[in-house]
Amino acid sequence: MSKTGAGNFFEDFRIGEVIRHATPRTITVGDVALYNGLFGPRFAVQSSDVFARAIGYPCSPVDDLLVFHVVFGKTVPDISLNAVANLGYAACRVLSPVYPGDTLSAESEVIGLKENSSRKTGIVFVRSTGCKPDGTKVLEYVRWVMVRKRDEAAPAGGDHVPRLPEAVLASTLGDACPRIDVASYDFTLAGSPYRFGDYQVGEKIDHVDGVTVEEAEHQIATRLYQNTARIHFDQFNGGRHVSPLFAGSTVFAWSEVLSRAEVPGRDEVGALRLRTVATKDRSCADFPLKAGEEDDPAVLLDLDYWVLMPR
Amino acid sequence: MSKTGAGNFFEDFRIGEVIRHATPRTITVGDVALYNGLFGPRFAVQSSDVFARAIGYPCSPVDDLLVFHVVFGKTVPDISLNAVANLGYAACRVLSPVYPGDTLSAESEVIGLKENSSRKTGIVFVRSTGCKPDGTKVLEYVRWVMVRKRDEAAPAGGDHVPRLPEAVLASTLGDACPRIDVASYDFTLAGSPYRFGDYQVGEKIDHVDGVTVEEAEHQIATRLYQNTARIHFDQFNGGRHVSPLFAGSTVFAWSEVLSRAEVPGRDEVGALRLRTVATKDRSCADFPLKAGEEDDPAVLLDLDYWVLMPR
Amino acid sequence: MSKTGAGNFFEDFRIGEVIRHATPRTITVGDVALYNGLFGPRFAVQSSDVFARAIGYPCSPVDDLLVFHVVFGKTVPDISLNAVANLGYAACRVLSPVYPGDTLSAESEVIGLKENSSRKTGIVFVRSTGCKPDGTKVLEYVRWVMVRKRDEAAPAGGDHVPRLPEAVLASTLGDACPRIDVASYDFTLAGSPYRFGDYQVGEKIDHVDGVTVEEAEHQIATRLYQNTARIHFDQFNGGRHVSPLFAGSTVFAWSEVLSRAEVPGRDEVGALRLRTVATKDRSCADFPLKAGEEDDPAVLLDLDYWVLMPR
Repeated sequence: MSKTGAGNFFEDFRIGEVIRHATPRTITVGDVALYNGLFGPRFAVQSSDVFARAIGYPCSPVDDLLVFHVVFGKTVPDISLNAVANLGYAACRVLSPVYPGDTLSAESEVIGLKENSSRKTGIVFVRSTGCKPDGTKVLEYVRWVMVRKRDEAAPAGGDHVPRLPEAVLASTLGDACPRIDVASYDFTLAGSPYRFGDYQVGEKIDHVDGVTVEEAEHQIATRLYQNTARIHFDQFNGGRHVSPLFAGSTVFAWSEVLSRAEVPGRDEVGALRLRTVATKDRSCADFPLKAGEEDDPAVLLDLDYWVLMPR
Repeated sequence: MSKTGAGNFFEDFRIGEVIRHATPRTITVGDVALYNGLFGPRFAVQSSDVFARAIGYPCSPVDDLLVFHVVFGKTVPDISLNAVANLGYAACRVLSPVYPGDTLSAESEVIGLKENSSRKTGIVFVRSTGCKPDGTKVLEYVRWVMVRKRDEAAPAGGDHVPRLPEAVLASTLGDACPRIDVASYDFTLAGSPYRFGDYQVGEKIDHVDGVTVEEAEHQIATRLYQNTARIHFDQFNGGRHVSPLFAGSTVFAWSEVLSRAEVPGRDEVGALRLRTVATKDRSCADFPLKAGEEDDPAVLLDLDYWVLMPR
Repeated sequence: MSKTGAGNFFEDFRIGEVIRHATPRTITVGDVALYNGLFGPRFAVQSSDVFARAIGYPCSPVDDLLVFHVVFGKTVPDISLNAVANLGYAACRVLSPVYPGDTLSAESEVIGLKENSSRKTGIVFVRSTGCKPDGTKVLEYVRWVMVRKRDEAAPAGGDHVPRLPEAVLASTLGDACPRIDVASYDFTLAGSPYRFGDYQVGEKIDHVDGVTVEEAEHQIATRLYQNTARIHFDQFNGGRHVSPLFAGSTVFAWSEVLSRAEVPGRDEVGALRLRTVATKDRSCADFPLKAGEEDDPAVLLDLDYWVLMPR
C-alpha cells in the first residue's frame, strides 16, 4: 500500500534474476576530495594529475575503493535493506579505470540462494557490477548476505550455493591499469622506494598509526556513497566480516605478502597478493589474527587482495 | 568604532529598503559533494549527468535546497545576526536551475516591520532573492524573523505586516524545470515507479529511517553555506519553526499529499503539494503532528511545498 | 628491515640537505569546498569566480591557508614524524596564486640543527617550499621543530642556528596578488566598507564569534591535507605555538594592526601587518594576551602576518 520501499526479503529473490539498481552517479572531484578527507589516502597516482599523466594515465583515476563504495551503495536498497549480516565478498575485480566526470550505474545478478534451517532467514548470493554509460564494466564482485524472510512459510526462490574462487587469479588482473612508464615513475614522489622485486612472500608489515573513527565521519561516508543501510555503512571485507566497528574506536592494520605473480603480457608491473588485517583498539605490532583456534576478538577485517607494483 | 560587524537591529530596518548581501558564491561540484555527504540525497536527476541530459537538462542541476541554503546564508549577516527567533517562511519559489560553475548573489527587500509591545524586539519581514550575474533570479522567498532592538526607545522604521499567500500557486510553478522527456525518464534508475497519477490527495507516507545529526555535521553544513548565525544553522521550515534540534538527536519524517494540480502549458509533469513533518527521536509510523490542540512536542519542522512529478 | 617508514630522527638530518617530499597533489574545487566546510572563510575573491575576474584574477584563487596546509602536510613524513613539539614558523611568504587544477609538490632544505643538552632531542630548522610543476614557487616558510633522537649517543648532523627575520619585509610582499582593479572591487559584495586607509596602527578588533572544534572536523582536515602527524594536526602559528587545542573547545580571536606599509610599485593596495591572537574557551572582548609576565593560559596562537588591502 505504502510507497515506502520496504526492500526485498529472502523469498523475493529468484536465481538468475538481474536487478538494475537506482541512482546512477556522476563521480566528481568533489566526491574525491570528500573521500580523501574521510580516508586519507596518499597514493601519488590518485593524488596528482601530473604524476598520473607522466606514467600513462590521462589524469588521476578515482580510488578503487571509492568506486567500490559507490557501486556497493547502489545495491543496498534492493539487496540488503533487510539483511541480518554481511557474510562475505569474493571474486572482486576492478575492470576499468574511473575518472572524475564518469557516471556509474550498478546491477546485480542473483547467483545463489540458500534458506536457513530456521526458515526465518536465507543467504542471498549476488554478482554485482558497476558500469559506465557505454557499458564498460568498471567493477564486479560477488557478495553473500543473510536476509530476513517476510513470511517464514514462504518458499525460497531457489536452492543453490555457487562455487566461488578461493582467490582472484593473477592472470585476470590489470584491466584497470594502463601500461605504466616505469622510467617516469618517480619513487621519491610516490613515497616509497620499494618495487615489486623488493617484496618477499611471508613478509609482514605493521602499518603502525591508528585512525579513530567518529560518528560524523562514518555517517558522512555512508551518505557520500548513497548507501541506505539502516545501521550505516561500517566496513567491507574481502573474505570475512568479523566484527563491527563503532564510533570512537581506533583502527590499526597490518599486511602480509601472500604471493607474487607475473601479469600476462606485462613486464613493467608485477602482482602482489596481500592479506590486510585490521583491528580495533589494539596495536598491530605483533600481527594479531588468531587467539587459539578462534579469531582474535580485536580483528575487524581480514582482506585478501592483489595490488600491482612497478618493477 | 569597532570594525566588528554587529549586524542590524530592529530599528535599523526601513520598509522598502533593499539590502545587497556580501560574499557572492560560485557553486562547484565540490559543494555538491559535501552537501551530498551531509544530507544524503538520492535524486537521479541531481546525481547523474547522464540521467539529467537524457530528460532535458544540460547536466545535473544543483539541489534546490543547497541553492536555498547558500542564498539564505548570505542574508544572515544583514538580517538575522540579532535574531531572537526565526518565525516563518512563505512564497518560496525556485525560479531557474543552477548548475555547477554558476555564481550566486543575494539581496533582500524589507517588506514589513512590526514592533512588539515590549519594545525590546520587532518582527522583520524580508523578500530575499538569489541571482546569477546576468540578473536571472534563481530563488525568492519571504521570511519573517524576530530581531532585538539595540535601544528600546528608538522608533521603529515602519509599521506594516504584509499580506502573504497561504500557499504558492500551482500556476506559478515550473520555471526551474525544463520540459522533461518522460519517455527517456528511466523509472528504475530513478528509484521509484510512481508517477504523478499514482499519488492521491490525503495519502500519507512514512519515510521510515531516521538520521542522527552530529555536531560536526551541522557545523560543517553551516560553514559550507557561509551562514554566520551564532547558534549555527539548524533547519529551515516552510511555515513554522517549531522546535530546535540539537546534535545527537535522530530526525524522522513523514509526508502527506495535500493537493494535486496541473501546471499550465505542461502536459509531461504534474504538481503535488506536500506537507512534510519532521520529528526528533520519535518514529513517524503514526504520522505525529498534534497533541490535542498543541503541536506534538517531537515535531521539528512542518514544511508545505510543491514538487513536480513526471506523468 | 620493515617497510614501515619510521620517519627521520634528529641525527638523520644534515645541514644543507634538500629533501623532496612525497605525494604531489592536484588541488581541486572539491578540496576548496571541504576546506570551506571546515573553516568557513567568506572572502569574496576566493568565493566567487565573477568577483575574482572583475578585479584581475583569472578565477577564484585557492585560499592561502589551504595552500599552506597542503604543502605543510607533505613535509610531515620526512620532517616531523618524530617531533616532540612544533616550536615556530618564520619568513612565510605566499609567492604565486594557486588555482583549482594546479598541482603542488614540496621540498625542504635543512638550514639549521641544534642538539639539546639532554642529547635526547634536537631542534631542526627547515626552509620548506611549495612548487607547481613548471617550478613556480607558490609558498615558502621556515619552521623549527624539536625532534627526538633514535640513539642518544649518535652525533648531530650539524650545529647551527640560522638567523631569522623578526618579520617579513613589506617590500617583498605582493607576488601572489595580481594588480587589482579597485574601481571594480565591490565593497558591498566584499562584506566590508573598510579600505587600507581606514586602519590605524594600534587598532584592535575583536572577532566576537567563537567556533567549536569537534574531533571529526580536525581529523577530516588532517586527512584533507594528507598530514600524517600522529597526534593529528591542530593549528599552526606564525611565531609561537603556545598551547594545544583539543576537540570540544571553542576558539575565539582578536587582531591588532601592528603597522602599515606601502608595497613598492603598487598604488592600488597597501599592506597591513596584523597580529591575530586566538584563545580557547575565552572571549576576546578584552584582547587577552599576557597574564603578568606569562602568556595568558587561554592563548592558543599568536600569529604575525601581512595582508594586502585595496586603497
